[in-house]
Amino acid sequence: MLGPQIWASMRQGLSRGLSRNVKGKKVDIAGIYPPVTTPFTATAEVDYGKLEENLNRLATFPFRGFVVQGSTGEFPFLTSLERLEVVSRVRQAIPKDKFLIAGSGCESTQATVEMTVSMAQVGADVAMVVTPCYYRGRMSSAALIHHYTKVADVSPIPVVLYSVPANTGLELPVDAVVTLSQHPNIIGLKDSGGDVTRIGLIVHKTSKQDFQVLAGSAGFLLASYAVGAVGGICGLANVLGAQVCQLERLCLTGQWEAAQELQHRLIEPNTAVTRRFGIPGLKKTMDWFGYYGGPCRAPLQELSPTEEEALRLDFSNNGWL
Amino acid sequence: MLGPQIWASMRQGLSRGLSRNVKGKKVDIAGIYPPVTTPFTATAEVDYGKLEENLNRLATFPFRGFVVQGSTGEFPFLTSLERLEVVSRVRQAIPKDKFLIAGSGCESTQATVEMTVSMAQVGADVAMVVTPCYYRGRMSSAALIHHYTKVADVSPIPVVLYSVPANTGLELPVDAVVTLSQHPNIIGLKDSGGDVTRIGLIVHKTSKQDFQVLAGSAGFLLASYAVGAVGGICGLANVLGAQVCQLERLCLTGQWEAAQELQHRLIEPNTAVTRRFGIPGLKKTMDWFGYYGGPCRAPLQELSPTEEEALRLDFSNNGWL
Amino acid sequence: MLGPQIWASMRQGLSRGLSRNVKGKKVDIAGIYPPVTTPFTATAEVDYGKLEENLNRLATFPFRGFVVQGSTGEFPFLTSLERLEVVSRVRQAIPKDKFLIAGSGCESTQATVEMTVSMAQVGADVAMVVTPCYYRGRMSSAALIHHYTKVADVSPIPVVLYSVPANTGLELPVDAVVTLSQHPNIIGLKDSGGDVTRIGLIVHKTSKQDFQVLAGSAGFLLASYAVGAVGGICGLANVLGAQVCQLERLCLTGQWEAAQELQHRLIEPNTAVTRRFGIPGLKKTMDWFGYYGGPCRAPLQELSPTEEEALRLDFSNNGWL
Amino acid sequence: MLGPQIWASMRQGLSRGLSRNVKGKKVDIAGIYPPVTTPFTATAEVDYGKLEENLNRLATFPFRGFVVQGSTGEFPFLTSLERLEVVSRVRQAIPKDKFLIAGSGCESTQATVEMTVSMAQVGADVAMVVTPCYYRGRMSSAALIHHYTKVADVSPIPVVLYSVPANTGLELPVDAVVTLSQHPNIIGLKDSGGDVTRIGLIVHKTSKQDFQVLAGSAGFLLASYAVGAVGGICGLANVLGAQVCQLERLCLTGQWEAAQELQHRLIEPNTAVTRRFGIPGLKKTMDWFGYYGGPCRAPLQELSPTEEEALRLDFSNNGWL
Repeated sequence: MLGPQIWASMRQGLSRGLSRNVKGKKVDIAGIYPPVTTPFTATAEVDYGKLEENLNRLATFPFRGFVVQGSTGEFPFLTSLERLEVVSRVRQAIPKDKFLIAGSGCESTQATVEMTVSMAQVGADVAMVVTPCYYRGRMSSAALIHHYTKVADVSPIPVVLYSVPANTGLELPVDAVVTLSQHPNIIGLKDSGGDVTRIGLIVHKTSKQDFQVLAGSAGFLLASYAVGAVGGICGLANVLGAQVCQLERLCLTGQWEAAQELQHRLIEPNTAVTRRFGIPGLKKTMDWFGYYGGPCRAPLQELSPTEEEALRLDFSNNGWL
Repeated sequence: MLGPQIWASMRQGLSRGLSRNVKGKKVDIAGIYPPVTTPFTATAEVDYGKLEENLNRLATFPFRGFVVQGSTGEFPFLTSLERLEVVSRVRQAIPKDKFLIAGSGCESTQATVEMTVSMAQVGADVAMVVTPCYYRGRMSSAALIHHYTKVADVSPIPVVLYSVPANTGLELPVDAVVTLSQHPNIIGLKDSGGDVTRIGLIVHKTSKQDFQVLAGSAGFLLASYAVGAVGGICGLANVLGAQVCQLERLCLTGQWEAAQELQHRLIEPNTAVTRRFGIPGLKKTMDWFGYYGGPCRAPLQELSPTEEEALRLDFSNNGWL
Repeated sequence: MLGPQIWASMRQGLSRGLSRNVKGKKVDIAGIYPPVTTPFTATAEVDYGKLEENLNRLATFPFRGFVVQGSTGEFPFLTSLERLEVVSRVRQAIPKDKFLIAGSGCESTQATVEMTVSMAQVGADVAMVVTPCYYRGRMSSAALIHHYTKVADVSPIPVVLYSVPANTGLELPVDAVVTLSQHPNIIGLKDSGGDVTRIGLIVHKTSKQDFQVLAGSAGFLLASYAVGAVGGICGLANVLGAQVCQLERLCLTGQWEAAQELQHRLIEPNTAVTRRFGIPGLKKTMDWFGYYGGPCRAPLQELSPTEEEALRLDFSNNGWL
Repeated sequence: MLGPQIWASMRQGLSRGLSRNVKGKKVDIAGIYPPVTTPFTATAEVDYGKLEENLNRLATFPFRGFVVQGSTGEFPFLTSLERLEVVSRVRQAIPKDKFLIAGSGCESTQATVEMTVSMAQVGADVAMVVTPCYYRGRMSSAALIHHYTKVADVSPIPVVLYSVPANTGLELPVDAVVTLSQHPNIIGLKDSGGDVTRIGLIVHKTSKQDFQVLAGSAGFLLASYAVGAVGGICGLANVLGAQVCQLERLCLTGQWEAAQELQHRLIEPNTAVTRRFGIPGLKKTMDWFGYYGGPCRAPLQELSPTEEEALRLDFSNNGWL
């Protein structure tokens, strides 16, 4: 059963949707976003208090907004109600001028449509939709175009495509992205694959559309700006928020030399909290940096002492610890 | 809300579980199983009537039982309630002496535990648990052992491990299988990867346990028997049930020459309804063979006419159409 | 400059080729073959004396013949002259009734043609031709069919195709194998990929031709026999020659239960001397078993003590040491 | 037998090596290089005349030099003598102030050492050494470090590492690159993998050394400059030489907006002449652009008419044809 918090959010969300009149690609999503983690208690319940505390601290950085239930948010471990409740709470906790991008992808098109509509109702400004992937052998461009079109047709809020091959084993094909970029309610792509040739090509081939590409990781943020991305959704921003925003500023103001130097020092920490040690690594680091990291839901395991030491070195060797 | 059908099944399932006293690996799962498809109406509702019709016809073959919500069952597209309702209906429809193996895997350990318990309540004899995979980069042997142990500890029915790398991008490591084989409530493995060296090794290294390996596809069924598997869960058995059972019989009675000839003729049709054309290919073939195939849920798409023609050739070239 | 040994062999080889009249697929290659290693001295020279000693001991087993310069033979590290000299020496050393299959593959078609002709001249009975692979992105079926057809057209001895994806990153496509099986001078395939579904399909689709499939490893030898292979080229036979031949005999006489038990005990040792520890592992094991293993050419490195210990366990755990 | 041309070059090369005193990393290789193709006659002989004609025309662009026998040069299809003769001829044909980087990699360490020395003797300024790859399963960092160290110890000219996973199935690990960067005779890396995060990390972790990274393709040239590369070895420069040099100039002078626009228009043509259509595509395009492309050696096949049309579109759609 939906709680009162959710219903309140839904009312507010709908009116936000109307007032913003988001269809037709008026929405500018340029900027840096942390994909926030979902804090859990020792008994694996969602800890909404800690979530709010984390958000309060993150709100002190010049982020464009927050991504909720990207891969970093452990969304596959949340029930549908938890997914909505978390978005609802984030909406309440963050400043009104911050964008809330909510991951609403599910395996089936119908479930994704429903989750997307619900996400809008509880206050999401934009829906980020990961590629379905269990039947990846049949996820042709045609199938993916059909999926995203259905979702975008119905969604009351703009849709951002989300390609994350490390998790899905599937890269949203360039031709599908180009076709989908023409949909009036599809405004951009989060690309976490790190293939900057591909990112450049997508920017190039969608340049006639009002289509925005966000880098899906801080490891290739500078390079992505160089080829035309407009921002990034960066797990690392959960712990080095000031630094990722600083990298953005250096890129936008053309200080490429300083940008390069900063980018270099972010690569190892970024890899550590993403590909190398995953969410357990990010949460451990959050504990070090004064946020609440806490445990992950199973089957994700805590880091071993050896892993934790390696994680620490990836930060300390670059001057961040 | 759970319907009356489910509650009735749950009562029955619990008593079955008790009477069978399944803990301690008394359960022999040797044999052939079709992993049944989930029929949908034109509006994408589960068509329970067609499901029952299909089962009635499948029950005429000497299958050991039925697998519900393997990958072939489109389980990622079903809600939790649909998953349970389908199992419940299958329990009612099939003869009492047929095993019902139900796929109960979810991404989180907790959700898998709950689904497994519920599957038992609605009448499953055995739970088949696919590897969680979204965070495959962190799905070490330790994480997977932890996951399966938690599930098996709680499950009122025996657990079969399920490794299907084509869908999950993840192969359950041999060392994890060997460790898990020692759990009193883990009785076997469905291996759909097709690496017969691996299958032989697993049989070898679990020979001290009461552990049974089932081939996950008809394409390598003969070879799997040759190295010690005790049966197969074969999508192809949904359309060529007599033939797959005949192959089993030839293997069990040592008629290897005839088995080889039959196996050869099953490889192309099998690949066609699995790797090549997926569930849309299987359902189309079911329509040809007098079952109800019908549409898949989106994002799975119908075959194109060209694909359909190729599918037909894979059957007709081998004398099955 | 070619040495006198080579010239003598060439004369003999040509007359052998004529007398055997090998074109037209009269050649039966069924049986077990060790792909012999190339022994090197401490200064990395080919040690022809040790080669002959190894062969003398291997000749006591009921092998059908010997493969020279399969992947196990470090052929990419040999000069063209060394490749020919080794084949020539093997021809002299082995009994006349043993087949000598020589790897003659190079990257270019022209070089492969020349090497194949030369291999025939120095005494090879059959040429085994690995897929060219450096430009694997362009190695379509059409390109590979063209390559093998050119070689087989010119070769004075029959040609065996050789697919070894672990080394080449390329699997010879089934459709190319089927087309090439119709060439009068292409008599078979060595398949080292281990995909027994594929092996079965190839046997099936070439059954109208006089085409023979050899398993490329002892790990899936039993399964390959079960689906229609006629033998194996097994690195493991360099150390467990009697056992691999015994496995063959059990398969050919239909003693599947005993075959299965023996197969099981060969999987780990086989993986150890192939995929896991490669040629350094095989050579180390040869030293243990009374053959001359010796060093590999660089860049292949000796095993570390830890690796050596793991290698030993893979043999001792299965009762071979 | 070596021809007189080669001997003359060898004498000259040795004195060049001495006079340049290249050991100790004084060599600055920053800039753009076309990896030249090897022209063949209709009968597949090396066409030295056409090679010279191509070079004369290429010499009109502000390249830093030329790469001979990169992957684009079909080096695996050349005999050792052809490899040396081609380098010798290029040395004669190009202006003295242009760098000649010669690919000298072979599978064995010893052969690579010899080829590297010979390349120096016939006039190469720098040796570019591809990772050995046939035994990729054993090509650990330790093995690769050993290989490159041996080569660099002996080489009279500086060594550039070469990582090209699309051809080798192997990426030179970052830790190996970092270790090797400390060798006084290893001056840089050509990285063709396109992973810009990795490139940035390598630049970062070798910043204390005098170590230079070159992008291995025009598709990610801008991004590579952005993260600290000093140039590129770009197949596309064989046909769009002016444009690739222009991109370099825009990057070096900080005109990032114009650079981005130009980079965008080069991605599709670049992919077409590399990953998509390979050397046959590049040679076909050279024919269009007034160079001599001509045939490839077998097994590389000519483009089909359909492929040729697609190739043309990749250029014309971006305004280059």
